Amino acid sequence: MSETDTPVSAVQAPEPKGRIVLSIDAMGGDRGPATVVAGMARSARKNPDINFILHGPRAELEKLVGKRRYLADRVEIRDASDVVTMDDKPSQVVRHGKQTSMWSALDAVRAGDASVCVSCGNTGALMALSMMRLRKLPGVNRPAIAVLWPSRNPQGFNVMLDVGADIRADESDLLQYALMGSSYARNGLHLPRPRVGLLNVGTEEHKGRTELKAAHEMIQTASEAANFEFVGFVEGGDIPGDRCDVIVTDGFTGNVALKTGEGTASLIGDLLKEAFKFTPLSRIAAVLALTSMRRLKKRIDPRRVNGGVFLGLNGPVVKSHGSADATGVSAAIKLAYQLALSGFQDKIAARVASAVSLAQDAAERETGTE
Amino acid sequence: MSETDTPVSAVQAPEPKGRIVLSIDAMGGDRGPATVVAGMARSARKNPDINFILHGPRAELEKLVGKRRYLADRVEIRDASDVVTMDDKPSQVVRHGKQTSMWSALDAVRAGDASVCVSCGNTGALMALSMMRLRKLPGVNRPAIAVLWPSRNPQGFNVMLDVGADIRADESDLLQYALMGSSYARNGLHLPRPRVGLLNVGTEEHKGRTELKAAHEMIQTASEAANFEFVGFVEGGDIPGDRCDVIVTDGFTGNVALKTGEGTASLIGDLLKEAFKFTPLSRIAAVLALTSMRRLKKRIDPRRVNGGVFLGLNGPVVKSHGSADATGVSAAIKLAYQLALSGFQDKIAARVASAVSLAQDAAERETGTE
Repeated sequence: MSETDTPVSAVQAPEPKGRIVLSIDAMGGDRGPATVVAGMARSARKNPDINFILHGPRAELEKLVGKRRYLADRVEIRDASDVVTMDDKPSQVVRHGKQTSMWSALDAVRAGDASVCVSCGNTGALMALSMMRLRKLPGVNRPAIAVLWPSRNPQGFNVMLDVGADIRADESDLLQYALMGSSYARNGLHLPRPRVGLLNVGTEEHKGRTELKAAHEMIQTASEAANFEFVGFVEGGDIPGDRCDVIVTDGFTGNVALKTGEGTASLIGDLLKEAFKFTPLSRIAAVLALTSMRRLKKRIDPRRVNGGVFLGLNGPVVKSHGSADATGVSAAIKLAYQLALSGFQDKIAARVASAVSLAQDAAERETGTE
Repeated sequence: MSETDTPVSAVQAPEPKGRIVLSIDAMGGDRGPATVVAGMARSARKNPDINFILHGPRAELEKLVGKRRYLADRVEIRDASDVVTMDDKPSQVVRHGKQTSMWSALDAVRAGDASVCVSCGNTGALMALSMMRLRKLPGVNRPAIAVLWPSRNPQGFNVMLDVGADIRADESDLLQYALMGSSYARNGLHLPRPRVGLLNVGTEEHKGRTELKAAHEMIQTASEAANFEFVGFVEGGDIPGDRCDVIVTDGFTGNVALKTGEGTASLIGDLLKEAFKFTPLSRIAAVLALTSMRRLKKRIDPRRVNGGVFLGLNGPVVKSHGSADATGVSAAIKLAYQLALSGFQDKIAARVASAVSLAQDAAERETGTE
């Protein structure tokens, strides 16, 4: 397992010379470590330059990894006896979670042994532990979870944040989300000048909550220096739409929207299956349409865009769905791999830092002229 | 037009002996009065016992109605020279809107000439005017807008409220929404004991905002007397799901969820069309699957569940989508017709009143024992 010792500094550069090392929490997902290892094997087959550090009970993990040909000599196992369950309170995990696989997985990124951490575990606990072990980026008050959302835009996806890191967000937090989200869109979706929208219940400026009006002004002011276009208020229908590339909102609203969208897509998928079974003719149609349907399914399958990214920390963390199957875990690993490849962490840190100093400059100038 | 003079008291009874009279705002929708009249004509053809009072510029409306065979002798036109536009602020409309078709449409319900009002106009203005002209039901602090949402439940739909009457809701408002929403589900969806869920970001009771924890307790306490089952916290994915029949949330979150769901459904519909065009085989499949697809489309078409209902006022108001076409307007009219037929207004008033007195009793009992 000597290959996992590749220096991590090289990995985080935009064009890595060595191998990409990802830190994987084997435990805490609804389907257990076998599914996580199956997802790792898929990713390992597709990307020969990924290595893994895998965290959990050593004996169990060695057995699972030993069965996978593509994982041979590419996995370092770090023993962790304890597991964070879906019912554990974040505050308890922060206090008593030192023996958990989640803690161990984050510490591998903290120590620089791996560039990105991936976990299917309890979101609240993962965020609390991430904040404690990785610390917030200077200038960031509330980290956020960003997801990719299937959309009508040419790039196929929009970025939405926060989808549940924190149930509150004031105007300064929303500004940070705009900065971090546009940085993510620039690096992850290759959009040179992303369009940012602020989620509200109406597009007229007089509608909505007080903090949204304040955030509207602050984001507008910051947009030029931070190199994004601010399209103003957007509505729920614009999340899968083409009016903007980045949707900014608080974690309560974002989480409800995310799960509503997923639930709606899944309901329609099931109704579609039923529709195809309804008559003999439609059953024939189903066979003929198979490849087209598969293409569509791939496009909107939530498992294939699986992976929220925690933004605003000293190190990226990819949160996979708790219920992710091997396909879902593999999608989360792919996202982590791409983030490591693009040198995203250094870029977002620079972006937030420069925006903070620009905002300070602007505040000083404004005070000066008044 | 003498038939519109049918006494309204008879119309509001569960089994009407006379005709149902609906008050229709012809103006304010994105597609103008011709679309509204086209929708009325569809409904009139299907339901021979509907009459209309139509509000707007008399000359224009007489021309439009004159062209529709099914509307002959079934429409009373009330002249209103002014129109509430989508950009008008609610406060301005309340102060200066006396000549508008929206005001006139509500006043027909207020006067008892019609049993339900239908409008495609500006939601904020319609709610503000409704509160002013119809007044809130005793015991209701914030009225709510409830919608029917396609779901996995046997009845095919769930009720969600509030989807945008007010961007705030405290715990008492959320309790009222639970009472009003379960009453709507009982009468509109024929569920004797509806299951009510409170929308949150997690199903564990320690998550979420303070007012949600308080509301959880209050709704639990009220559930038995008010004859509904409280399933506790639910998430966005449960809105189209089968865990509950009524989803209770504040108007900001509900509005974002509604529009996210609609946007997602519409995106998938368009991707489906594309998928069917992709290959010659899939084009053949599309022809074979036509009737199955039509059935599915009918099930999830937002136009066919068009119509939010304003709950908590002295008279039901059905708000149609601003962009509704004739099919959408006809769906809103159908909903208004069903509400009038079921005597819903009297039932919800009784339900809210009895819950208020029960809550008062309980509060007195609790104070007594402490």
